[in-house]
Amino acid sequence: MTDTAPEARLLEMVFPDHTNHLGTLFGGQALAWMDKAAFIVASRHARRIVVTARSEEVNFRVRVREGELVEVEMTAEDPLSGDRRVCTTGRFVMIALDAHGTPTAVPALPAGD
Amino acid sequence: MTDTAPEARLLEMVFPDHTNHLGTLFGGQALAWMDKAAFIVASRHARRIVVTARSEEVNFRVRVREGELVEVEMTAEDPLSGDRRVCTTGRFVMIALDAHGTPTAVPALPAGD
Amino acid sequence: MTDTAPEARLLEMVFPDHTNHLGTLFGGQALAWMDKAAFIVASRHARRIVVTARSEEVNFRVRVREGELVEVEMTAEDPLSGDRRVCTTGRFVMIALDAHGTPTAVPALPAGD
Amino acid sequence: MTDTAPEARLLEMVFPDHTNHLGTLFGGQALAWMDKAAFIVASRHARRIVVTARSEEVNFRVRVREGELVEVEMTAEDPLSGDRRVCTTGRFVMIALDAHGTPTAVPALPAGD
Amino acid sequence: MTDTAPEARLLEMVFPDHTNHLGTLFGGQALAWMDKAAFIVASRHARRIVVTARSEEVNFRVRVREGELVEVEMTAEDPLSGDRRVCTTGRFVMIALDAHGTPTAVPALPAGD
Amino acid sequence: MTDTAPEARLLEMVFPDHTNHLGTLFGGQALAWMDKAAFIVASRHARRIVVTARSEEVNFRVRVREGELVEVEMTAEDPLSGDRRVCTTGRFVMIALDAHGTPTAVPALPAGD
Repeated sequence: MTDTAPEARLLEMVFPDHTNHLGTLFGGQALAWMDKAAFIVASRHARRIVVTARSEEVNFRVRVREGELVEVEMTAEDPLSGDRRVCTTGRFVMIALDAHGTPTAVPALPAGD
Repeated sequence: MTDTAPEARLLEMVFPDHTNHLGTLFGGQALAWMDKAAFIVASRHARRIVVTARSEEVNFRVRVREGELVEVEMTAEDPLSGDRRVCTTGRFVMIALDAHGTPTAVPALPAGD
Repeated sequence: MTDTAPEARLLEMVFPDHTNHLGTLFGGQALAWMDKAAFIVASRHARRIVVTARSEEVNFRVRVREGELVEVEMTAEDPLSGDRRVCTTGRFVMIALDAHGTPTAVPALPAGD
Repeated sequence: MTDTAPEARLLEMVFPDHTNHLGTLFGGQALAWMDKAAFIVASRHARRIVVTARSEEVNFRVRVREGELVEVEMTAEDPLSGDRRVCTTGRFVMIALDAHGTPTAVPALPAGD
Repeated sequence: MTDTAPEARLLEMVFPDHTNHLGTLFGGQALAWMDKAAFIVASRHARRIVVTARSEEVNFRVRVREGELVEVEMTAEDPLSGDRRVCTTGRFVMIALDAHGTPTAVPALPAGD
Repeated sequence: MTDTAPEARLLEMVFPDHTNHLGTLFGGQALAWMDKAAFIVASRHARRIVVTARSEEVNFRVRVREGELVEVEMTAEDPLSGDRRVCTTGRFVMIALDAHGTPTAVPALPAGD
């Protein structure tokens, strides 16, 4: 069990098959990356198998262009200029499961997290 | 422009790389499929390029197992027994763009849709 | 067992990695989607594991361009104009297997199908 | 232009996402690999962009298991025992295109090919 | 241009199609992730397009199992126990290119990096 | 066990998602293909499960462009002109494992290989 709040900062590069015809990142791809980050953070905190129970409202504030680097909780960075823009946030509710696949309690996150 | 409400029913088979270690569908994969369906429906209605503006709360009510067929707006079907379970719903807000990438109006959906 | 003929209409969007250098859909990708549709239809009819025994002659009548939506038994649709063109058909012979992997009989399809 | 008949022997390893629930290779995956080989052979012969015009009847004679190596025109090999079985053959008709995307003639294949 | 040494810590989950039949991570997949990290670090430092000039000797010290999280410069973590093992290191030489694709100089990395 | 030295010549087509923004093949993708070839050759020689122990220095001598065919031990071929350029070589050390996952001896390769 970790003492500090676990984190999972995903770093992805936006490739052509992540984008629509305007060359901007598909919302569904962004949601999948955000859920993957939530899955890893929750696994690291609970040290159990976790599943997604609910994704809360996600607003897509700026468009992410092909060729940009994406860090999830979701910052787009132009690899040439270094400009970074926060582009979306989300909230995912995860459930920890015991060895029988039954929901189970996990320790509270550290205060302030 | 279509006279009736456009629809896009996606049909996917849950493969090993869509699942976690319990063999159930990742939430992020489900969200990506739902956004893809929203993208197709909105494209067919607006006949313009569309982007995701917001995904609203999505609840994952039942687990979808590997080897099941998934229809998005999201029914899991056991291919052997034919049993079907509605497993989640979602609401995605899409924005239509004109040729300059500027948000633009689209006709209202048919009443009752 | 279903009373009516089962169907499986796949809906795919043609992405860059589905196309050749002219930006048109690879024949092999189309064949894979057609087989996937055949697999789902046959699974739904037989409610058994099925395998492909034979694909019959497939003619590719029109080219499908990147960015079009594809419905298998295989209609290409331009998402902006809504124009639809039937582009290919195929016939796949599937075999149902019992629990031991042995070919097994399935009920006849409804008349008129 | 090559003097001898060009060839393209693809070598693939059958992974979990190429297989059904019996752990055997999907027919559609095999068809996609066969088309890819036909595309490469025809490109090498014509030295032009080629497209698939027609796939002729393909019979699937033996099942290919996960973890086997596949050589297209389509031999499955068990990597541990070295046993090899010819499992299917196919015939793909390709069309060469000139710089304007118009079908165009290519030299005859060498005799005996 | 960043003042501090840029970093790129990739976080990946080992899925079935990243592994061999013993369920351990393919060396080639690890190399691809390491090169991706090198590409991102070098892009962030040079703020130019970079290409790989040379990968130096890479030793694979421990096996990484399916279902583990991988951080590149390459730590495997069991998501249930939290155990972490350094499993490999590598050295990739990258070249920065100017707008014409010609190799070009970049500022030195901060001392101590 | 084969009497002659086994070989594995991989043939791949460079697609958009294998390339950077200059349209040239990522080094990491090339390394992954080289390791896959080494895996197949070593499997065919040892007829056992093999794992990568070490990749030695790999130099990337020429850039491989999107749309080229790649043969691993690594020749890039322009599909239109037929021009071929040797572009990189590598050396991968593989270890054969017995049924318990323990490293095990394999017969020597034929002389001259």
